[in-house]
Amino acid sequence: MNETRLASQIEFILELDRLKEILRQSTLLSGSRRENSAEHSWHTAMLAWLLIEHAEEAIDAGRVMRMLLIHDVVEIDAGDTFLYDTEGAKTKAAREEKAADRLFNLLPGDQAEELRAIWDEFEAGETPDARYAGAADRLMPLLHNLHNGGLGWRKHGIRAGQVLERNSKIAKASAGLWEYAQRLIATAVERGDLKRD
Amino acid sequence: MNETRLASQIEFILELDRLKEILRQSTLLSGSRRENSAEHSWHTAMLAWLLIEHAEEAIDAGRVMRMLLIHDVVEIDAGDTFLYDTEGAKTKAAREEKAADRLFNLLPGDQAEELRAIWDEFEAGETPDARYAGAADRLMPLLHNLHNGGLGWRKHGIRAGQVLERNSKIAKASAGLWEYAQRLIATAVERGDLKRD
Repeated sequence: MNETRLASQIEFILELDRLKEILRQSTLLSGSRRENSAEHSWHTAMLAWLLIEHAEEAIDAGRVMRMLLIHDVVEIDAGDTFLYDTEGAKTKAAREEKAADRLFNLLPGDQAEELRAIWDEFEAGETPDARYAGAADRLMPLLHNLHNGGLGWRKHGIRAGQVLERNSKIAKASAGLWEYAQRLIATAVERGDLKRD
Repeated sequence: MNETRLASQIEFILELDRLKEILRQSTLLSGSRRENSAEHSWHTAMLAWLLIEHAEEAIDAGRVMRMLLIHDVVEIDAGDTFLYDTEGAKTKAAREEKAADRLFNLLPGDQAEELRAIWDEFEAGETPDARYAGAADRLMPLLHNLHNGGLGWRKHGIRAGQVLERNSKIAKASAGLWEYAQRLIATAVERGDLKRD
């Protein structure tokens, strides 16, 4: 056993604990509290596993799950940027790049490279795995809002046009899932959970 | 797209949200609050991925990650049973079997069978994947206690002999990781974070 190598791995694993303290804008389905980025990562990886048959391209399930388990790790340093926060979006990439440089490099070199490559691929969203992982990352909070009366949308005065625009990338991975999501969004508008434009 | 099938999948995915409200006895490293079973599942899957080179048998990383993502889902109905709770341990299997029957059957038949088989394999702990996943599930809270001054141990008056006995199954997956864990446990005793027997 290489003690230095194991020490680096354990240091990174312990650092991950801080992702449990990063709060998102989304609320648990029960409405009891805001969701954190660690439990969101777990839930999104589960969603990706269970809905993989709806992807239209060939997907490597194991890679997509790894991608989703680490996709928000950079928020430990960079914080969570709300999907509809246009100001925050301007600095998001730079903040997250810096975070990725520090965090992944806590690991031994080969693992730092492996995780960074998977995270970069997710961010670029240009491969089938990254497109599907990106769709899962959009669909999960959409399902939350659609099933808790639009708590997150109401709080921030989000309108239907914004939801359709910011979530349309689901269609790049699955026309079927996007069609399903659009129907639910229309129902949310009818119910008054989401404002019309 | 099979609408009935998708509806079952979404129902299960939404039900999973409740795992975020199941509190464990372990505390976050910062000590700020108790950990929930959803974020624990994420953290343990990450640990298993990153330490897989220390396993002594051939491991299917993707299966182990799936196993760890769902290993605590039954707690939605059965609640969390503390590792050192000997009374709770007597009814744990029956409570969790009943929970598995209800929860996994929310999914379409083929997926219900798939998840149930993986969960049964984890519980039985008799395959290389299940042994390694079981070791990760022990090592994660051990690391928490070893790095937060033994918060969980102190609260429940746990002694070194109990920690060694309940965690020794780590050795079945990796002699190296168990040796490492034993050294840390000895240090915790020296520091007074863990009571001598």
